[in-house]
Amino acid sequence: MTLFSSAAAPAGSASAASERYTIMGAGLVGSLLALYLARRGYPVKVLERRPDPRLAGPIEGRSINLALSDRGWRALEGVGIAEQIRQVGIPMYGRVMHDVAGNLTSQPYGQNNQAIYSVSRAGLNRTLLELAEAMPGVEVQFSQQCLNVDLRTRTLELRNTATNEVHNHEFQRLFGADGAFSAVRGALQKTDRYNYSQSYLEYGYKELNIAAGPGGTWQLEKNALHIWPRGQYMMIALPNLDGSFTCTLFFPYEGPHSFAALQTPEQVQAFFQEVFPDAVSLMPELVEDFFQNPTGSLVTVRCFPWAFDDDVLLLGDASHAIVPFYGQGMNAGFEDCTVLNQLMDQYGQDWHTIFREFQRQRKPNTDAMADLAVYNFEEMRDRVADPRFLLQKKIESKISAQYPGRWMPLYSQVTFSATPYAEAWAAGQQQDQIMQRLMPHIHSEADYDRPEVQSLVAAEMKAKS
Amino acid sequence: MTLFSSAAAPAGSASAASERYTIMGAGLVGSLLALYLARRGYPVKVLERRPDPRLAGPIEGRSINLALSDRGWRALEGVGIAEQIRQVGIPMYGRVMHDVAGNLTSQPYGQNNQAIYSVSRAGLNRTLLELAEAMPGVEVQFSQQCLNVDLRTRTLELRNTATNEVHNHEFQRLFGADGAFSAVRGALQKTDRYNYSQSYLEYGYKELNIAAGPGGTWQLEKNALHIWPRGQYMMIALPNLDGSFTCTLFFPYEGPHSFAALQTPEQVQAFFQEVFPDAVSLMPELVEDFFQNPTGSLVTVRCFPWAFDDDVLLLGDASHAIVPFYGQGMNAGFEDCTVLNQLMDQYGQDWHTIFREFQRQRKPNTDAMADLAVYNFEEMRDRVADPRFLLQKKIESKISAQYPGRWMPLYSQVTFSATPYAEAWAAGQQQDQIMQRLMPHIHSEADYDRPEVQSLVAAEMKAKS
Repeated sequence: MTLFSSAAAPAGSASAASERYTIMGAGLVGSLLALYLARRGYPVKVLERRPDPRLAGPIEGRSINLALSDRGWRALEGVGIAEQIRQVGIPMYGRVMHDVAGNLTSQPYGQNNQAIYSVSRAGLNRTLLELAEAMPGVEVQFSQQCLNVDLRTRTLELRNTATNEVHNHEFQRLFGADGAFSAVRGALQKTDRYNYSQSYLEYGYKELNIAAGPGGTWQLEKNALHIWPRGQYMMIALPNLDGSFTCTLFFPYEGPHSFAALQTPEQVQAFFQEVFPDAVSLMPELVEDFFQNPTGSLVTVRCFPWAFDDDVLLLGDASHAIVPFYGQGMNAGFEDCTVLNQLMDQYGQDWHTIFREFQRQRKPNTDAMADLAVYNFEEMRDRVADPRFLLQKKIESKISAQYPGRWMPLYSQVTFSATPYAEAWAAGQQQDQIMQRLMPHIHSEADYDRPEVQSLVAAEMKAKS
Repeated sequence: MTLFSSAAAPAGSASAASERYTIMGAGLVGSLLALYLARRGYPVKVLERRPDPRLAGPIEGRSINLALSDRGWRALEGVGIAEQIRQVGIPMYGRVMHDVAGNLTSQPYGQNNQAIYSVSRAGLNRTLLELAEAMPGVEVQFSQQCLNVDLRTRTLELRNTATNEVHNHEFQRLFGADGAFSAVRGALQKTDRYNYSQSYLEYGYKELNIAAGPGGTWQLEKNALHIWPRGQYMMIALPNLDGSFTCTLFFPYEGPHSFAALQTPEQVQAFFQEVFPDAVSLMPELVEDFFQNPTGSLVTVRCFPWAFDDDVLLLGDASHAIVPFYGQGMNAGFEDCTVLNQLMDQYGQDWHTIFREFQRQRKPNTDAMADLAVYNFEEMRDRVADPRFLLQKKIESKISAQYPGRWMPLYSQVTFSATPYAEAWAAGQQQDQIMQRLMPHIHSEADYDRPEVQSLVAAEMKAKS
């Protein structure tokens, strides 16, 4: 039931056969959602603000590499395209930390060759778009800027950015997958008692590049995510298929070590030489990249409700933009599609129930993921450089192996399971308290097998719910 | 230094003599701020969206009574008008709780006749306006809706709501005191990396009325704030000078006991008869008020920064709207004026420093006050009906008397002191932990004097920082 059905519905009420879907945003989540909806046989129109990416060069200045993990794969499997994507992904089996002297330490992400996959955002988006457009009933229109959403008349006011022409599109059911600065959410924000927050870290990010070696070889370990943890800031690098790595510097806007403090090529070169010496020799275009690439900001967006009546639903970054430090932004958005698809299986076209259940189930989980993402920034830029922290991770891994099914490290629950994020976060906090009690008794990996440590672990596991 | 001074400043740089101030909003904070600025001898223009309240009847549908407490009085004293206002305020020395059977219990707010004062919002606003307009250099213009703030050119676009004429006002320094839905904040929200949240309670409020008795007498205890605590909801009443009380029902929007559940006059009458029987007999216009008065929403707004360069500063609800349950919304806004005035004393016309110091000092305190306000809702609607809670308050009062200067109840710190809100909140949490440890040993007021309780208290006080 829509509040305004009598005013706005086309002649004759919407029957199953006439269900039409509009998706605002042809990014990763919008394209995947189009695939999910089109599989049900109904027409889908996808509207995208930007020009067709397939007509331009690579997308610059945005996060170029993404880390696909289990929740993402599951969503891709749901439309039968996981294997196709996996062929262009590079598995990363763990973190490799680089200290200032260039010494390396490593930490596996999971067990038994579990990996997250480095994929190109632009490439993945193009593939999803092509698969969606190939489905009967799917139409994608680019260069369509959403100027306004009239919730009462269910009308989108769109500007064709190529021609400047403004026109209206009446929607029957609108999915807002238009990202962290969503225009569809903008309309919901104007409704009564709308809860909304946007919160920025005092850090920005800058994408840089490590060049490919001779013959397209990788100059660092290919199958890893590289981290240069430096306490209050860090750089990371993810491998590309061509032998290069895409680096991202996460750095304060202000302060002694900050974007504000690096104003000249000499300052940039000297700073990188001092703090990332083993990387800088592999970055011939460092200074050029640093000054040409934009500085991105890091925002967390929370809002509620996500649905307006049964007319409009927000998904992905539009409803829960998070910072990138857990590699879960895209995975969470893809999981939205999985959850929505399950609800469509369960409730058919009872969109009132589907939309309400979707936001009821999903909101606590994306809130937890937002917290986890901020939390992981500290871990990555600081704690991974601490030998005690790395020892604790190894001990956790031993507990997990000794008590199968009774202990899954937080990172594994988030990355390699479908456990709802809020449950993972709660379980992770409980396990962390146990580790706080155990670690004072453990000073090396070998200590784990000492009888007194074994009995402490056994007691904790007995008490663990 | 303004970023755009060369582009936007009038011919000749701003000297002390040419300092001009613009205040958006002639509500409580805007009017008081005008007084503070005008005392320094510079021209102040105040622009207000609404018509001149002195030309209309009383303002309907908004919170009609307010509770002035120490922070508010201090700000009024700063411009020499506290005594004038106090003459029209009614001191409330404590809470009187009404149970369903009509039994009363009471709890003093402080010691030695400390009181909060019930004042009329509309009356206070008019008085402040008249005092401000009487100052040389102050000009107040009403019916001026702010359509846009151009931060680059420092221009306000205003619509005269009486004539519909649109015109521009160039400002030199703009103070946004235009409330929870501030148009000035709307401009700041569009700047890069702006932190913003609006969060609504799932409760609304409705203003109702207890009639005056014969000859303008008060039908309930005059010098008290009355509460009908009912667990998940409550009604309160504050005295008016004419013998009536203004009641406010704080009530869920949805659920078994909610605004949604009361749709007919019979339902309203029956519900009030059941849960507020001793009040309903004093409310002859209950049903009429219930359906005619609007249902207000309860929002908390947080944002940062409050300043844009040294051109614009937000104050009062525009930067920190809070829910009303601690009676601190106006008091916090008035304290903004006190703090700003101290900074003007300290830094003269170095507005860059003044604006930065203001938001640096003030933001943690208004954040704490926002949390306290939500926290106090639970106390008022639920805990004040619990004899154990009231006993704890009495014991706290005894500790405070026995250890002068070492223990001030949280309510007193917030209401009867100038302790920064964040410090008050931290001290209150520490004291609450102490009470959690003491109360299991205390079952009556007399228990406090038992030697074992005295020694427990002494040990706690010795350990207390």
